[in-house]
Amino acid sequence: MGTDSGIAVPELSSVQFSTVYNLFSLVIASMLFTALYLLFSRGRVAPRYRNALVVSAIVCGIAAYHYFRIFDNFQESYPPEESIASSHLLSNVAFNEGYRYVDWLLTVPLLLIETVAVMALAKSDARRLLWKLVPASALMIALGYPGEITSELGPRLLWGTLSTIPFIYLLWVLFVELTRSIDRQPPEVQHTIKMLRLALVGLWGVYPIAYLFPVLGGDFFGGADGFVLRQAGYSIADILAKAAYGLAIYKIARVKSGLEDPAYDDDHAVPGPDDGSPARPTPGRDTVAV
Amino acid sequence: MGTDSGIAVPELSSVQFSTVYNLFSLVIASMLFTALYLLFSRGRVAPRYRNALVVSAIVCGIAAYHYFRIFDNFQESYPPEESIASSHLLSNVAFNEGYRYVDWLLTVPLLLIETVAVMALAKSDARRLLWKLVPASALMIALGYPGEITSELGPRLLWGTLSTIPFIYLLWVLFVELTRSIDRQPPEVQHTIKMLRLALVGLWGVYPIAYLFPVLGGDFFGGADGFVLRQAGYSIADILAKAAYGLAIYKIARVKSGLEDPAYDDDHAVPGPDDGSPARPTPGRDTVAV
Repeated sequence: MGTDSGIAVPELSSVQFSTVYNLFSLVIASMLFTALYLLFSRGRVAPRYRNALVVSAIVCGIAAYHYFRIFDNFQESYPPEESIASSHLLSNVAFNEGYRYVDWLLTVPLLLIETVAVMALAKSDARRLLWKLVPASALMIALGYPGEITSELGPRLLWGTLSTIPFIYLLWVLFVELTRSIDRQPPEVQHTIKMLRLALVGLWGVYPIAYLFPVLGGDFFGGADGFVLRQAGYSIADILAKAAYGLAIYKIARVKSGLEDPAYDDDHAVPGPDDGSPARPTPGRDTVAV
Repeated sequence: MGTDSGIAVPELSSVQFSTVYNLFSLVIASMLFTALYLLFSRGRVAPRYRNALVVSAIVCGIAAYHYFRIFDNFQESYPPEESIASSHLLSNVAFNEGYRYVDWLLTVPLLLIETVAVMALAKSDARRLLWKLVPASALMIALGYPGEITSELGPRLLWGTLSTIPFIYLLWVLFVELTRSIDRQPPEVQHTIKMLRLALVGLWGVYPIAYLFPVLGGDFFGGADGFVLRQAGYSIADILAKAAYGLAIYKIARVKSGLEDPAYDDDHAVPGPDDGSPARPTPGRDTVAV
């Protein structure tokens, strides 16, 4: 190890290799098809919420692109050896964690944008929040990158600490400033928005823990098991923080659309004049473009 | 060096290689998903501004295509060596800067077209401006190309100077002729359009500076660090001049659409008769196709 601490391990067993391989493929499928689902569903929410859906789809699309790259890179870094049962040895191609930072640099600010978009705040409130959230989140990711690519523990801790400063600022904006705006949301979605905010911050906690694996060191964290756990942590956190998060945004947009315009409250059977009759078409819905 | 001054360096360290590699991937993701975002958002602006959005998306798409090529070319030019920590040596495949000129030859005139399109000028004014801007910008790029691929400094300076002539003409058209048209734009977008014009010209300044690196010479500008800085300059300037520029065009189109037809001013909660009441649907929006 030494010069590449924690970023690449010299050997993965065939089981470890398959686990990471299948996880990466799971992420690609989740991201790509969540993106398509959100795009094809945007006609089912009121126009003012469509941007939130398109941005959520873009986030999943960007993640899918990066996982295609990560997947190919992983295969090149750990090529097949003599037999199926052989361990995969690290080749002369580095396993490039830098992709993840490029991904987060684009997707983390967009996740905050989709969250503010689905709240449909007054224009000045939305602008004020975004001017705080977007630069702080980009700074948080950018400051983590030099620490991730370094081979030494000192700079890793230094950059990690610097990156924590905008993170704490984000927490303050999300949990103090945003709370006032959440209180003005319809009661039906207030709880969901609060859970989303908690999920976002909770999932962000996965990334610094994985970042600290090389600092923790030891046989486990610095070795092949630590590598697999780290990739699994990133992959599952990415699915939850982007795909599942995007679907929750869609759900909020659907509920708010239905509250504001009955034309969008069309998912379920509509009881007739005497209850229990079969569903009838909702009037006016066919005027809504897709 | 000698015969390939500044266009290709014989050796990149693994950190230099990763930096350029991750930057190229960042450009691909930025361009590709800005293009998709603009395409899926075109229903959110009035019909007369949709062409500006589609052209902006096409510009980003063309750039994404070229960066896929540049990315693959870069990997072939600097293949992995013995170990992950080894420097990447220039292979028998040239790193082809010519791609960039093909890209600019298509995208720079289109950037001017999208700018004129979003202003929605009178037909004769638009035609007159485009007949000046488009040929001049194509000529500016075409005259730079022979200077870029030459190995000698004399022709590089000669073609660079020739290319500056249409550039100065463009400045004159943008800052003298276009100003009359900007003054007739709604006050809400005049400032943004002026900033865009400044950004366009400011970012174009990056390209001649990078072009002059080989002329500047020296260990830095002619060496690996100069190569990385040059690629970083091109990449960041391309993201700003195409993706960020396209998003600014979208923003102008949204503002103008909202001013001309309240159906498009729908992003935010609409306060009821007494403030603080829940949002109500915006009438008339259902006539807008997506």
